[in-house]
Amino acid sequence: MPSCELVTIGSELLNGSVLNTNAQFLARKITALSIEVAYQVSCKDREQDILDTLSRAFERSDLIIVTGGLGPTPDDITREVIAKFFHCPLKFNPAQYRHILHHFRTLRKVTPLMTRREAFLPEAAKPLLNRFGIALGFYIAAGGKLLITLPGVPRELVKMYETRVEKLIKDKFPDRPRFYFLEAHTAGLHETQIMRKLGKGFFAGRKFEFGIYPKIGEVTIRVKTQEKNLIPILHRELVKKLKGSLYSCKNESFSAALGMELRKCKKTLAIAESCTGGLLAERITDPPGASQYFKGSIVAYSNQIKFRELGVPMELIQKEGAVSAEVAQAMAKAIRIQYQTSIGLSITGVAGPSGGTRLKPIGLVYIAISDSKRNRAFRFRFLGERDKIRLQATQKALFLLWQWLARG
Amino acid sequence: MPSCELVTIGSELLNGSVLNTNAQFLARKITALSIEVAYQVSCKDREQDILDTLSRAFERSDLIIVTGGLGPTPDDITREVIAKFFHCPLKFNPAQYRHILHHFRTLRKVTPLMTRREAFLPEAAKPLLNRFGIALGFYIAAGGKLLITLPGVPRELVKMYETRVEKLIKDKFPDRPRFYFLEAHTAGLHETQIMRKLGKGFFAGRKFEFGIYPKIGEVTIRVKTQEKNLIPILHRELVKKLKGSLYSCKNESFSAALGMELRKCKKTLAIAESCTGGLLAERITDPPGASQYFKGSIVAYSNQIKFRELGVPMELIQKEGAVSAEVAQAMAKAIRIQYQTSIGLSITGVAGPSGGTRLKPIGLVYIAISDSKRNRAFRFRFLGERDKIRLQATQKALFLLWQWLARG
Repeated sequence: MPSCELVTIGSELLNGSVLNTNAQFLARKITALSIEVAYQVSCKDREQDILDTLSRAFERSDLIIVTGGLGPTPDDITREVIAKFFHCPLKFNPAQYRHILHHFRTLRKVTPLMTRREAFLPEAAKPLLNRFGIALGFYIAAGGKLLITLPGVPRELVKMYETRVEKLIKDKFPDRPRFYFLEAHTAGLHETQIMRKLGKGFFAGRKFEFGIYPKIGEVTIRVKTQEKNLIPILHRELVKKLKGSLYSCKNESFSAALGMELRKCKKTLAIAESCTGGLLAERITDPPGASQYFKGSIVAYSNQIKFRELGVPMELIQKEGAVSAEVAQAMAKAIRIQYQTSIGLSITGVAGPSGGTRLKPIGLVYIAISDSKRNRAFRFRFLGERDKIRLQATQKALFLLWQWLARG
Repeated sequence: MPSCELVTIGSELLNGSVLNTNAQFLARKITALSIEVAYQVSCKDREQDILDTLSRAFERSDLIIVTGGLGPTPDDITREVIAKFFHCPLKFNPAQYRHILHHFRTLRKVTPLMTRREAFLPEAAKPLLNRFGIALGFYIAAGGKLLITLPGVPRELVKMYETRVEKLIKDKFPDRPRFYFLEAHTAGLHETQIMRKLGKGFFAGRKFEFGIYPKIGEVTIRVKTQEKNLIPILHRELVKKLKGSLYSCKNESFSAALGMELRKCKKTLAIAESCTGGLLAERITDPPGASQYFKGSIVAYSNQIKFRELGVPMELIQKEGAVSAEVAQAMAKAIRIQYQTSIGLSITGVAGPSGGTRLKPIGLVYIAISDSKRNRAFRFRFLGERDKIRLQATQKALFLLWQWLARG
């Protein structure tokens, strides 16, 4: 199996200003290609350090991916150091320069002089044009090895990897062992609950690697095997054993899967949210085409807005408190009727860090769903900081809506 | 200045299952001690790879911090490989074994046999008892160098660093230079524009390290120097040269700085957004205490909601299109009056990936601000994918509002 080394360059990584998400992204992608990522090295934007790191990487690895240090400012020296490492000059690339000029023209801005640097690449290299930014990527194939250099801006790196780089690697290393993958995304269950549902029978006598990765309100299961016909068998078992929690075996967000359900059921949705401040609507409108089911929402942050715009009675707010099942239900119903949708979804809670009391502590959240037949409120107590509480509340609201649709 | 190398061991890092937050945590802490983190290396739980990584680290660094691979399962071999590297046997540590037994007694569980491995450490090492878990840390001081080994569980690592390890490092390296730091957060300017504004004069004849870190719509500048009295001088120059863009020298988000301004000006805010789907309100309500200035918002995703709830005339929508300066202004004014706030802020645009036309292409966004005296719309053309367009649009809206407040 070919081996890979990831070299991430940038003082911001070494002083801890920035979390190295690029290394994780690339590690996952390269591993999925049946190439072993054996080392990951970060060093500063310092010539000798980069040269040392490159020569070590070329000694022991077949594929070397270097990211970072391709910007226009003087501290960015990756381009120059790689040219030095390969004993070749930098060469002007006219297509890249046109791309830079075009980029700034579209922004109606003057092209800064210093960006001209970014139209150069080592003579030994072939360009990897970056349609998502102005830093030029490039690659050098030499002695059975492949060096790929990508900009460190995560968004640009991801896009370039997906559109150009993966194919380049596959073509260069055609004789990789063939692996088959299965991914299952679940919501509403913990890791341990999933393991219990799967049971020992799921693993017995079968050859596959199993990974289980939790994030807030969701767990992803990843299976890797060399036995192609094991995939449909495992898939059927997962669907059966995780019924009601498995939302997708594709690489899509929960919002996207939920949007698909809303479309399938021909339901429209309106939202009234308070402590989550727009995050629920933001997540619902994240997938393209959300306008087919989502009509609009109100962020009723103050009680006056809950009263004036949603018609929640002031007496109810005063009697039960703005964070209560009754107010959540009133909000869900009001937004559904006002925005003329089939479903109304609401959140009201205490996100903190202040505003908690003994009876209404930080993390207390009510979520309500209303349609023409039913109106139910659900009570939760989430732990953690403000942003984590907001995230958990919206995740739970999306999950409750998904279950609601499943029940019909 | 002493140099440090971070060695993080674990196959889960190399296959991308886990994000390397330990490296970032340690990098930030060690940098703050005026020890330079020059390299960060991750390798798999494989003997030869660990040995190679250790010998390289001992060649070039003074302080080596190794994390991970100290668990009880057979794949964890860090303890054994370090003993081998120092040519010494493993030695039983009775205090650590009592700690393990006590740990399981507290949990009312039987102590698993395999955890006995965790009571051993290399004979050359001194123990670092882990009160937060069962994996034993340890350190070896040799030839002016210091090796520290810590468990890879982030929570345990953080606690152990804070309670024991930092003091150990300070004592071992007492003659560290003292550094002073300055951070400046700016919005609305590109890296290159900032460099031009600072000019060569900012750098000439002065001894400091300069870092510049862009993200969407924002740029952070970081200065590090040994000359204490340079800090206020640079601070004054930055404030003067970056007037109208520098929003904070503290570690706070742009939303938080904007919130502070709104509070200072005693202004209240309401939002009407379309293509950004709630993201603008979400960002405004991200800082705690946003309820002091933010009253609420409408996500008018469909035209009917723009018409019915915001009273934007249907003829206007039909004549100018929902994505137009006129509709943006109508939205900003309507939400301000309806929600009884001093300022109304609106966004309408085409986030894509579909819905673009020749006249109204994907990325076209209008932002309007309305107060009792003025109502102005601004036109932008953002590039990139749906999520990037949404992010840029909200960033620009926050920035325009900040400028609006500054002008009074």
